[in-house]
Amino acid sequence: MSMAIPPAPPAIEGSRLRRLGIDTGAEHVVYLRADSAVCHSEGFASHSRIELRLGARRMLATLNTVENDMLALDEVGLSESAWRSLMPGRDERVLLAHPASVDSLASVRAKIFGKTLGEAELHAIVGDIVARRYSNIELAAFITAGCTDHFGLDEVVALTRAMVDTGTRLHWPQPLVVDKHCIGGLAGNRTTPIVVAIATAMGLIMPKTSSRAITSPAGTADTMAMLAPVELDEARMRQAVERTGGCIVWGGAMNMAPADDILIRVERALDIDSVGQMVASVLSKKIAAGSTHAVIDIPIGPTAKVRDAIQAQSLAHLLMQVGAALGLRLRVLLSDGSQPIGRGIGPALEAHDVLAVLQNHADAPADLRRRALQVTAAVLELGGAATAETAPAVAAQCLDSGRAWTRFQAICAAQGGMRTPGVAAFRQPVTATRAGHVVAIDNRRLSRAAKLAGAPNSPLAGLTLDAHLGDPVLPGQPLFTLHAQSPGELAYAMEYVSRHPDIVAVAAGA
Amino acid sequence: MSMAIPPAPPAIEGSRLRRLGIDTGAEHVVYLRADSAVCHSEGFASHSRIELRLGARRMLATLNTVENDMLALDEVGLSESAWRSLMPGRDERVLLAHPASVDSLASVRAKIFGKTLGEAELHAIVGDIVARRYSNIELAAFITAGCTDHFGLDEVVALTRAMVDTGTRLHWPQPLVVDKHCIGGLAGNRTTPIVVAIATAMGLIMPKTSSRAITSPAGTADTMAMLAPVELDEARMRQAVERTGGCIVWGGAMNMAPADDILIRVERALDIDSVGQMVASVLSKKIAAGSTHAVIDIPIGPTAKVRDAIQAQSLAHLLMQVGAALGLRLRVLLSDGSQPIGRGIGPALEAHDVLAVLQNHADAPADLRRRALQVTAAVLELGGAATAETAPAVAAQCLDSGRAWTRFQAICAAQGGMRTPGVAAFRQPVTATRAGHVVAIDNRRLSRAAKLAGAPNSPLAGLTLDAHLGDPVLPGQPLFTLHAQSPGELAYAMEYVSRHPDIVAVAAGA
Repeated sequence: MSMAIPPAPPAIEGSRLRRLGIDTGAEHVVYLRADSAVCHSEGFASHSRIELRLGARRMLATLNTVENDMLALDEVGLSESAWRSLMPGRDERVLLAHPASVDSLASVRAKIFGKTLGEAELHAIVGDIVARRYSNIELAAFITAGCTDHFGLDEVVALTRAMVDTGTRLHWPQPLVVDKHCIGGLAGNRTTPIVVAIATAMGLIMPKTSSRAITSPAGTADTMAMLAPVELDEARMRQAVERTGGCIVWGGAMNMAPADDILIRVERALDIDSVGQMVASVLSKKIAAGSTHAVIDIPIGPTAKVRDAIQAQSLAHLLMQVGAALGLRLRVLLSDGSQPIGRGIGPALEAHDVLAVLQNHADAPADLRRRALQVTAAVLELGGAATAETAPAVAAQCLDSGRAWTRFQAICAAQGGMRTPGVAAFRQPVTATRAGHVVAIDNRRLSRAAKLAGAPNSPLAGLTLDAHLGDPVLPGQPLFTLHAQSPGELAYAMEYVSRHPDIVAVAAGA
Repeated sequence: MSMAIPPAPPAIEGSRLRRLGIDTGAEHVVYLRADSAVCHSEGFASHSRIELRLGARRMLATLNTVENDMLALDEVGLSESAWRSLMPGRDERVLLAHPASVDSLASVRAKIFGKTLGEAELHAIVGDIVARRYSNIELAAFITAGCTDHFGLDEVVALTRAMVDTGTRLHWPQPLVVDKHCIGGLAGNRTTPIVVAIATAMGLIMPKTSSRAITSPAGTADTMAMLAPVELDEARMRQAVERTGGCIVWGGAMNMAPADDILIRVERALDIDSVGQMVASVLSKKIAAGSTHAVIDIPIGPTAKVRDAIQAQSLAHLLMQVGAALGLRLRVLLSDGSQPIGRGIGPALEAHDVLAVLQNHADAPADLRRRALQVTAAVLELGGAATAETAPAVAAQCLDSGRAWTRFQAICAAQGGMRTPGVAAFRQPVTATRAGHVVAIDNRRLSRAAKLAGAPNSPLAGLTLDAHLGDPVLPGQPLFTLHAQSPGELAYAMEYVSRHPDIVAVAAGA
C-alpha cells in the first residue's frame, strides 16, 4: 500500500432486471439507461463489456445504452439469450461491474499477428466461447484470423479436440460406430434415413444425430420428424440403438461441440468458410457423437457450398489428416452437387421421397436411391460389413429385398412410433414458357423459394422438382411445383419466383 | 424467361417506424417482431441484414427480432443511429427488403485469404464503411485482416487516400500549413494550445482541428473549450485563421475522414492496433485538414499506447513512407511516455496548466513547458520559421516574451471570446502511507480515476498530480488530488482508487 485511502462508499445496490425479449443472436446484450447512475459512475458506454453478477452466477454482456423511457432509470434490460442464460429469480437483483479481462483474447490477438497457437491456448479460447465470454466482433476476429492457411494442421487438430472437450461426448459400448456427413447440404439430399436403415440392417452400429434446418428448407432432423419422434433424450436414444443398432435423432439438445453452433452463426454472417474451421466443425460433431468411422460426402457444384474440385480436394485432404490425428477413420466421397437430389424440398416432401426409395416404389426418385446406395456402400466398406467389391451389391440387395424398409420401421417404432407425412393443401406449378432443355438449376434460389412457401416451419410446405438437368421440356410443362399450407405463403413464394425466372433455366435447342 | 408465372401478389405495404432510443454504436439495428408478417414472408431472422427503403433513401441495418410486445406486430423499431440516419417524416412508412450484396465485401474476403488490395478496392471498401453498409462483424473482419504486415505500403497509402476522399477536405490559400499530432495521448499532455500560439506568433499557418475525448478524461477540444468556443463551422474557422494564422477547434463536426471514426470504435473494442490502420487514421485526418507539414509525437512508455522503441521505430518508418507518398512532409518525435505531463488531468485542470505555461507563472508545470517547446521547435523547423539550431531558442523566446500569450488571447477572441475555467467544489487528496520515492505511475488507471471523478462530462472534474516519477515523498504527503463537481462522483473515484492502491507507486529507499 502506498496511498492512504478514506473509507470506500457503500457498495452499489443491485438493480432490477427486465426481460426485453430482444433476440441478439449468440451475443448477450444488456440494456441500461445512458443517464443511469451506474453508467455515470462506472463510465459504461455503448459497446462496453459488462459483467453481471447474480448470486454466484457471472455473465459477460455487451452494453447498449437506451436514451428514452423504454427502461426505467434503475432497470437493467436483458436480451433473450442473456435472460435465458442468467434465469433470474423473481425480485433477484443484479450487480454490474467492469469485467476481468478475458485472458484467451490475448491468444486471439497473438493469432491475428501471426502466432501459431498451442493446444492449451485453443482450449482456453473455445472454453471462453462456449461460456459466451466473446462478443460478436471478438468472434469475427477469431474466425478471420483463422482463415485458410492461417491455421496449421496441429491447430486444427487442437481446435477440434477443444470443441469436443467443451461439450457433451457420447460413448457407445461397441468398438465400431459408423457415421456419415454431407458438407454444405444439397437441397433434397436426404440420404441419411436410407443409409442408417441399410447399415444397421447389415449389422453396423449407426446412432445418427442430425440437425434441424438453420438456413435451409429442411434439415435431416426436420425430415425425420415427419416419420418418427426425433427429440429423444440420451437414455431413450440409447434404448433405440440397443434395439435396432441405430437411430436418426435431433442432436441439438445434447450440447455436442457447442462452440461450433456459436462460431457458425458468425461465419455465416461473414459468408466466409475457413477450411480449418469447417473441418473442426464437422469432425468435432462426429467425435462428440461417439463415432469411430465416418463417410464424408462433399457435393461439388457452382451453387453448392464447395464449388470446385480443387477446393474439395484440399478439404478432403485436411479432413483425412485431422481425422487420423484424432483416431477417427474417414472415407471422403466427392459427388455431383450441380442440382438437388430427389424430388421434394421441404420436410414432408423429402420424407415422401425417402419412403418411396425405402418402399421400392416404381416412381421413387432414382437419383436419391443412387446417391443413398453410393454413400451406404462406402459406410459398409468402412465399417467392415462388406468389401469394396461387394458393398454396392450388398447395399442394393438390402434395399431391394425390403430388409432396409423393415429395419427403418423398427427404428421409427423404437424412437416412439412411425408417422405418415401429410400433403400440403395449396399447390402451384411453375411451368416452362418455351421448348428446350433444362440447362441449369440454381440450388440457392430453389431453397429460398421453398422457404418462402413455408418450409421448414410449415412442415408440409416446400416444392417438388418436376424436371432435372438435361431433361427436355415443352411450353406449359411444369418445371417445379410449390407447396404451401396457406394461400399467403404460396403468394409470397410465387412473388419471389416471378422475380427470378431462371431458377430452373431452359435453353432452346437439342 | 423460361418459366410462366401467375401475377405477383400486391407489394407489401410500408410499416410504421418507431424510435427505440437504443444506442447500438456504429451499427444500425432494426427491430422487428419475430412473429411479424414481414419476418415470416421474407425469412428474416436475427442478424439478417435488411435494407430499409424510405422514399428514395436506402439504409442497411442488422435485424434483432423481438419476442414480446415491446413492439406491435406491424411496427419497425429503429436504433438511435438508424433513426438519425433515416430521419423519417411523421407518418412516413418504410419498406423492408433483402439487401443487394455489398460488393466490396468480396474484397474483404479476398484480403482475409491473403490477396493484396488495389486502390479501387480499398476505395470501395472505405466508401461502403462510410455509408454504414458494414455490420460490426464485417468491420471486425476487415480490421483483423489488415493487422500488422497484412497491409503493405501501397495498401496503407491507398487506404489513407480513400479515407481522405470519402469525407470533407479543407483547402487553405497558403502553400504551407503546419500541424501536429500526438499518438496515443498521454494524460495531461496538452501541448497543442501552446504550440499553436507560438507557431502562429512566428508567422506559420496552423489551423488545428482537435478531437473531444473518446476514452480519455479530456481531449484537446475539451480542454480548449474551457478557454474559448471550439464548435466553429468552416466559415468561422477560416475567419479565425485569417485573423490570427491559427485556431484550435473541434474537428468532429466537419466530417473529415469519417471512416476512421467508425473503424476506431471496433479497433478499440478488439483492443488491437494495426500499425497500417493507425498510420492511415492519423495521416488521413491531417491531410483532410489541409495540412502540408506535420510533427508527429510518439510518447513511449509501459502504460502508453506505444510501449517500446522497436514498435515506435516501425510506426515512425511507416508514417514517413506513407506521408511521402501522399505529399505530406512529416517530422516524427519519439518522446518519454512513462508518466503524465503537467499537473492537471481533466478539461479545466489541463486548461489551468496551459494558462500557467502561456502566462509564464512561476509554478507552471515545467514538464509541460519543456514538452511544448520541444514540439514547437520541431514545428518551426519543419515549417521553415527557424533552423534546427535556432528553433529551440526562438520558441522559448516567443513564450518568455509574452508574444505567445498575446497571440493565444487573439486566437481565443477570434474563436468567439476568451473564457476563464472554474474550479471544482469537491477535492480529496490521496496521500502516501510511507516514505520513499515515486517509482511508477499507471497512466491508464490514473485516467480512469479522473473519469470516475466526472471528467470530461463534468468539465471541472479530474485530478491533479502532486508528485512525479522519482520525487521523494513522506507519509501523509499528497500523491494526487481528485477533483469533482458532486460528492457522489468523488466517492466513486475514491472507491476505485482504494481498490488500486498502486496507481502512484512509492518504494522505500533512497
